Amino acid sequence: MQMAEARRGVATEEIRAVAKDEEKPIKHVMKMLAMGRIVIPRNVRREGIKVKGIGEGLRIKVNANVGTSPDYADVQEEVEKAKTAVKYGADTVMDLSVGGDIDEVRRRILRAVEVPIGTVPIYQAGVEAAKGGSVVDMTSDDIFNAIRKHADDGVDFVTVHCGVTKAAVDALLRQRRLTDVVSRGGSFLIAWMVHHGEENPLYKEFDYLLEIAHKYDLTLSLGDGMRPGCLADASDRAQFQELLTLGELVERAWAKDVQVIVEGPGHLPLDHIEANVRLQKSVCRGAPFYVLGPIVTDIAPGYDHIVGAIGGAIAAWAGADFLCYVTPSEHICLPNIEDVKEGVMATRIAAHAADVVKGIDVERDAEMARARKELNWTKQFELAIDPEKAKELRRRRPPLIDPTACAMCGKYCAMRMASEYLAKL
Amino acid sequence: MQMAEARRGVATEEIRAVAKDEEKPIKHVMKMLAMGRIVIPRNVRREGIKVKGIGEGLRIKVNANVGTSPDYADVQEEVEKAKTAVKYGADTVMDLSVGGDIDEVRRRILRAVEVPIGTVPIYQAGVEAAKGGSVVDMTSDDIFNAIRKHADDGVDFVTVHCGVTKAAVDALLRQRRLTDVVSRGGSFLIAWMVHHGEENPLYKEFDYLLEIAHKYDLTLSLGDGMRPGCLADASDRAQFQELLTLGELVERAWAKDVQVIVEGPGHLPLDHIEANVRLQKSVCRGAPFYVLGPIVTDIAPGYDHIVGAIGGAIAAWAGADFLCYVTPSEHICLPNIEDVKEGVMATRIAAHAADVVKGIDVERDAEMARARKELNWTKQFELAIDPEKAKELRRRRPPLIDPTACAMCGKYCAMRMASEYLAKL
Repeated sequence: MQMAEARRGVATEEIRAVAKDEEKPIKHVMKMLAMGRIVIPRNVRREGIKVKGIGEGLRIKVNANVGTSPDYADVQEEVEKAKTAVKYGADTVMDLSVGGDIDEVRRRILRAVEVPIGTVPIYQAGVEAAKGGSVVDMTSDDIFNAIRKHADDGVDFVTVHCGVTKAAVDALLRQRRLTDVVSRGGSFLIAWMVHHGEENPLYKEFDYLLEIAHKYDLTLSLGDGMRPGCLADASDRAQFQELLTLGELVERAWAKDVQVIVEGPGHLPLDHIEANVRLQKSVCRGAPFYVLGPIVTDIAPGYDHIVGAIGGAIAAWAGADFLCYVTPSEHICLPNIEDVKEGVMATRIAAHAADVVKGIDVERDAEMARARKELNWTKQFELAIDPEKAKELRRRRPPLIDPTACAMCGKYCAMRMASEYLAKL
Repeated sequence: MQMAEARRGVATEEIRAVAKDEEKPIKHVMKMLAMGRIVIPRNVRREGIKVKGIGEGLRIKVNANVGTSPDYADVQEEVEKAKTAVKYGADTVMDLSVGGDIDEVRRRILRAVEVPIGTVPIYQAGVEAAKGGSVVDMTSDDIFNAIRKHADDGVDFVTVHCGVTKAAVDALLRQRRLTDVVSRGGSFLIAWMVHHGEENPLYKEFDYLLEIAHKYDLTLSLGDGMRPGCLADASDRAQFQELLTLGELVERAWAKDVQVIVEGPGHLPLDHIEANVRLQKSVCRGAPFYVLGPIVTDIAPGYDHIVGAIGGAIAAWAGADFLCYVTPSEHICLPNIEDVKEGVMATRIAAHAADVVKGIDVERDAEMARARKELNWTKQFELAIDPEKAKELRRRRPPLIDPTACAMCGKYCAMRMASEYLAKL
């Protein structure tokens, strides 16, 4: 129980591991965790995990989504995607499966990788209800049972769309959005609420949810069911109505020693990002902010990993703590393994660009600069975020005349020529 | 003579074309051009050009660099790269050749594409001098003759590193940088200045340069020979010493009706970009700002198109007018045709993300949102920044169960489910 222990001044094994990993004092990590500004997602049942801290002052973390779809439900491929994501540096993996044997995918991923694993249990509740009829046939118990089952399996954090309340739906209707709702969990809940004429069970029975979370030390990631799905819908009243609710739920979770993260948009123009981060941090009292993208233009399907890297870098720089990757196939199809790699790399670049501004990992950039100046290619590859890719490019067009140079400038290397002559002064 | 005509209140054919293209009043474009805040690079000798305006309030423009290296000097490949860049939406192309038949590459590119073409004539002066000895054997006349030859051929803009002065070199020495100089033109000039113990001819004889530029209406792009080559060297005294000189030269160019652009960094951390743009705009009296990247981390060789897109989006949002692309092979080797496409697409995404913030082209994003909501795939492909790529991804994983859906969510499409139920309220 990370939060309860931290509040009692106990430095758990996990707190010590995070402090070491982040090169921060143990007391600092403990204090920030006690305040809710840092989380360490780690289910008490999870085995073989290398824990990660997420939150203020820590390295920006990167999540990779994997999971089956109704059309493509190859368990082995999703396990490979999870392993690929971790191989290329994803800090966490979420299994968003909605096709095939959902239990099997989740359980195999939990065994296959050592990073914290997240899921969205309402997907399974909805998909199983839909087998015999419709998503709206799921019961409130089905939803909580799915959460309990995932927690039993050792899942470290779950997305729960608790802020999709009647008030948020009313705001949404009055808003007249272009794309209404693009959150899958949000849409399941809205359908259910409309069909049954009832309030969202994850909101109404939030205390019950907290009991489950408390039992497993399951970190709650409060989902953004109202996130904007296009620039035109960004930062609107529906989105912020939900955020206000999430802020209240953060405080209720903390009152029960439950660790909590808040999820955020979505599609946002460049000039909305900082305001969104500051507002979340303020309304949610410094709870870690987990953003998807943000996507800064709607017109680049096929390149949304780049679009998300632009938004993610700005969000992380502004104070977001946790970036969910976006792959090149976003908005089109389920990603393949290569897309997973591309998504992880783009998001890690965004995270690192923000980290260096905060003084984290700057020495690596300086070492790369020195290796470049020395034309030390071995060192450059070692320091590269993706050594394989850098080597592959150099192999593709090796220097032909001077093996120490690069194949772009060859003997007209600016660094070499300038140094040679500056040394004469 | 665009600037002289604009100042006399004459709306040239080029001014009219830009006003139409940008959906701005002709008078506005004329006035901004007269003030130097907009340029229309167009050599009086250039034939078959579709002009572009670059500067305040216009769409952000994207440049693609092509050109041979000492190791790889295939003229045909460089022409293909130029055509590829334009096919995918580059607004201008620069030929940076330093290998093989430099005249041939430039002349063929000028005929092959209709966009404004830029070059860096000092490369040719240096490379030709190096054939019989060393770069430093070029004479002052060789430099000006190269500029004149390029202008005679119809080149629309040239990079001239006029700010690499003795004062800037002194500042550089006192600065003790990690990577000294990463500008090829800058290094040629520093080598020459040290070897001959003389001031930079492009600075000393700037009036002569203005005469040549005036004759051809050649737009001068004042190069940033002192641009930082790594985060550790960003925004230092050497860089700004050069910028102060460039600000003075901008005013001298304007006094002679010569159109001028200012080039900027380079490698900059996220939090330096806005300050750099504002300082350039202030010191250079609103002259258009042309940035390379900026590169926001040094550690991602193989992905520098993404790194540059992050920096470019922020720079353009802050007021930069013209983004030079960066390709995945930057820092490693000469790009191939696929790299050129990737570089152009990433940079166009950055440019568009900044444009929409200024209200330019926003309707396209909204149309994409509507097409997504309607699951109208034909329309989505039409609106996509790269329709081929989007189609290719959909073909790779087509929807198997419901052909109207996507292969990620299938029947659990959030937009469709939410709309269906919201309509019941």
